[in-house]
Amino acid sequence: MKVLVHNDEPKRWQEALAARLPEAEIFTSAAPAAKRREADYLVAWKPPASLLSELVALKGIVNLGAGVDALLNNPELPAGVPIVKLRDAGMAEPIGDYVRYGLLHFQRDFDRYRRRQHAREWREHTMCDKADWPVGVLGLGAIGARVATMIAADGFPVHGWSRSPKRLDDITCHHGDNGLEALLSQVKSLVLLLPDTPATRHIINARTLALLPEGASLINPGRGTLIDEAALLDALGASTVEGRLRGAVLDAFPEEPLPETSPLWSHPRVWITPHMAGPTPLVEALDQVAEALRSLANGAPIDVVDPKAGY
Amino acid sequence: MKVLVHNDEPKRWQEALAARLPEAEIFTSAAPAAKRREADYLVAWKPPASLLSELVALKGIVNLGAGVDALLNNPELPAGVPIVKLRDAGMAEPIGDYVRYGLLHFQRDFDRYRRRQHAREWREHTMCDKADWPVGVLGLGAIGARVATMIAADGFPVHGWSRSPKRLDDITCHHGDNGLEALLSQVKSLVLLLPDTPATRHIINARTLALLPEGASLINPGRGTLIDEAALLDALGASTVEGRLRGAVLDAFPEEPLPETSPLWSHPRVWITPHMAGPTPLVEALDQVAEALRSLANGAPIDVVDPKAGY
Repeated sequence: MKVLVHNDEPKRWQEALAARLPEAEIFTSAAPAAKRREADYLVAWKPPASLLSELVALKGIVNLGAGVDALLNNPELPAGVPIVKLRDAGMAEPIGDYVRYGLLHFQRDFDRYRRRQHAREWREHTMCDKADWPVGVLGLGAIGARVATMIAADGFPVHGWSRSPKRLDDITCHHGDNGLEALLSQVKSLVLLLPDTPATRHIINARTLALLPEGASLINPGRGTLIDEAALLDALGASTVEGRLRGAVLDAFPEEPLPETSPLWSHPRVWITPHMAGPTPLVEALDQVAEALRSLANGAPIDVVDPKAGY
Repeated sequence: MKVLVHNDEPKRWQEALAARLPEAEIFTSAAPAAKRREADYLVAWKPPASLLSELVALKGIVNLGAGVDALLNNPELPAGVPIVKLRDAGMAEPIGDYVRYGLLHFQRDFDRYRRRQHAREWREHTMCDKADWPVGVLGLGAIGARVATMIAADGFPVHGWSRSPKRLDDITCHHGDNGLEALLSQVKSLVLLLPDTPATRHIINARTLALLPEGASLINPGRGTLIDEAALLDALGASTVEGRLRGAVLDAFPEEPLPETSPLWSHPRVWITPHMAGPTPLVEALDQVAEALRSLANGAPIDVVDPKAGY
């Protein structure tokens, strides 16, 4: 088995995978072109088109993350080569903590207190109890379902939404277009954990934002393309006064790094983090990658992406 | 029913209890001595021995808190008078959430990302896992113990400290002066949940701050008098660069409201909230007190303390 590794830390992954799969030959995209062309498996996060076009012997790809949109949109992605995606690989817990922070940020008024601190103003808000703070989670895949369950256990009433019907303990599940409208109309915070597909692109737009109750807040540890940025800025309103949308905690953007010219940087009610909500923990991910490569080699791959569905 | 109220806010409690128990006569320890001696019930937090010695007609005590050690150790506590204790009255959960927010603020680098946002800088930190982020909790009373347990369940290793030895599941418990030094030397975040006593005043000072590892952070939802403010500012260092102390999330201050002239307001690594961590759950506590008084008057008190067991 010849495996090419391509991500931010290829040397580290090469060594760790080699230790786990002694039967395989593991190399990085720093290997000579002739060697690269021999690769029968690619383990990668956002491989460049130039690399994909070289891999003429490819029999399978392991995608180093939950989101496969970048890969599916790559013009040089070879047709018919199975793609295995990582399951949550330990990402749900850090993403859940990101969401927890975002929820407490609004529910406990930390956003307002921070602005008041700049004005040296000591004034307490009456706390709205968690039990009276319904949260919507869009996307109930491996990560969305676990995050929804975590925050429900924290005491927030949680509404979940997926395209097709799902059932989850302690979560009010909605689905389809009508379900989305029903969810949006009753949540104080909205959490986005959907994949980037043609169907989810700009799912948060002027129409859907208008369905949220006055003063709702948005938390996006998901994909940047889910949000129509112009509509978001419009719903946020003038920077110094709370608009229809109280605030947004954003970790993902259509273009990353977020361009220096983006008006989001300076909006006082937007909190920006550099796509750090769900770092992939190496050990757990390596176990899954090794398992995925063996399943590909055995001709019975698990967790294969459906390119038509987009996830 | 003649009820004497004694705590930090006797007037407020007198009025609120009077509204709830119209059949009772409620007064504070500011009433004349002759009136005080008529009290058949005492609703109090840490009543002085001099007050207890006056209450010759006492038929029952409602302890305004979960910890009864102070009351049981009072030399003037009349023998055979039933003591009813309050359960935590709902304060531990919001205080726990405050601590959760503070811990994630530092562990997930939200403090740094917020400063970077002002500079339009997109740069990710490598996440330090919760399992590698030991937290110290000073104070293991009813609230401290529950908060320590909550954050241990979240996945942080938790060290707790109290003056006398305690045992708590999943918490490494320390006690006494040596235990405090041992705890301080190994925690990345320090949470203060101690009462304000002569022994705890300025427990966070130049000497104890110097025992914390470089880059530690401080979270104080407890009492403002626990911290020597000059030593805190010194450990924080110059405002724009992270000093020995990375940051502080503070909810309590020796003088409240925090004076407009306080340098804490403008320190960029200090986060100030207006004593909102544990919103006085007056409503819940009053419900419990009224219920306790009625149960005492009916001769069938509930949640009675066993003085031999000490709780």
